[in-house]
Amino acid sequence: MQEPLAVILASGGMDSCVAAAWAAERYRLAMLHVNYGQRTEAKELACFRRQVEHFGAERSLAVDAPHLAQIGGSSLTDTRVDVPQDDAPGEVPSTYVPFRNANLLAIAVSWAETIGAGRIVIGAVEQDAPNYPDCRPAFYDAANRLIDLGTRPDTVIGVETPLIDLKKADVVRMGADLGAPFHLTWSCYRAEAAPCRRCASCRRRAEAFAEASVADPLAG
Amino acid sequence: MQEPLAVILASGGMDSCVAAAWAAERYRLAMLHVNYGQRTEAKELACFRRQVEHFGAERSLAVDAPHLAQIGGSSLTDTRVDVPQDDAPGEVPSTYVPFRNANLLAIAVSWAETIGAGRIVIGAVEQDAPNYPDCRPAFYDAANRLIDLGTRPDTVIGVETPLIDLKKADVVRMGADLGAPFHLTWSCYRAEAAPCRRCASCRRRAEAFAEASVADPLAG
Repeated sequence: MQEPLAVILASGGMDSCVAAAWAAERYRLAMLHVNYGQRTEAKELACFRRQVEHFGAERSLAVDAPHLAQIGGSSLTDTRVDVPQDDAPGEVPSTYVPFRNANLLAIAVSWAETIGAGRIVIGAVEQDAPNYPDCRPAFYDAANRLIDLGTRPDTVIGVETPLIDLKKADVVRMGADLGAPFHLTWSCYRAEAAPCRRCASCRRRAEAFAEASVADPLAG
Repeated sequence: MQEPLAVILASGGMDSCVAAAWAAERYRLAMLHVNYGQRTEAKELACFRRQVEHFGAERSLAVDAPHLAQIGGSSLTDTRVDVPQDDAPGEVPSTYVPFRNANLLAIAVSWAETIGAGRIVIGAVEQDAPNYPDCRPAFYDAANRLIDLGTRPDTVIGVETPLIDLKKADVVRMGADLGAPFHLTWSCYRAEAAPCRRCASCRRRAEAFAEASVADPLAG
């Protein structure tokens, strides 16, 4: 029997790369990248294209969703707002894009239904973003219900979040075990030649690799 | 006490115009139009702008969501697929854009959370599109649950669908009672100077006005 086709939401970052490596062992891959106007899009799109090649994905698609930047409300897409070096504990950080993951999921469902994919894999990590409301398991349970009700009667699409309960260091370990191409990922909130190593995202990445005792190929 | 702010998803069509007229009696209006690459976008956007002016909306925003056309899968956005004159009974029509309303809702929630609107009003009509899976009350119940889980802890946003149980003729009657500006709406699946009067959407509109014994200002 042929393996099912799965849409992988691939940002070009580390978590979705590990999720793709996890999915590659189970499914045929349809890799989807969404350009929503994030500051680092050029870096992330380049990583996405290299990951598509690395995994030999059966299908790939990069789409434009400028509406999130047009709406604004986040330092991740609004260049008038500075990216903070620290996330304040307990607060929703300024990099939060309101309801971003729901927008990404809705796009993934539209593509999955169009191409007949029965799975959507998303590399959401709750601990990575404990204050992002749309990175929690209950959110994805509710999304599965909405997808079941909102698609054609004969469409069955399930969302899977293989990393959701992992600590960031465990994501690194899992990626190392699966041979995920960490050298083809981008995490930094800035888009310079090399990662800045100062922003909250760079520091979370460095801590995770250190805790996992894995060498980060980008830390060179 | 000030009236709550409500995001109205306004396509430029008849149903959302009546929904806006309903909302105008209850809320301050934030009218949102999404250009998702539909064939008739220029007509619909022009109607949207005139409706914003007509209702004196406090805020308005037109955003671009080209991803739905990039994904394809519908005769409404894919110009290689012909728009049918009839919907086959019991089947999901070719004009169905996979998971479109979920995409539109996700966009509306992102804007609502950004501007602090507590309501989203959408003019979905189940009978108008009985075979569109995302036009049913259960879909919106599930959406409300997803919104509750996927937004900031202090955000409360409820989706309201004032037309969902109405027959198309009742939408016309309701619009006539509320003084909805039907002359500022566009229903035709084609984008010619005047409505074609032959496509399924034009015929549904004509039947509804006839059944409601209301004169359609566009039929003149």
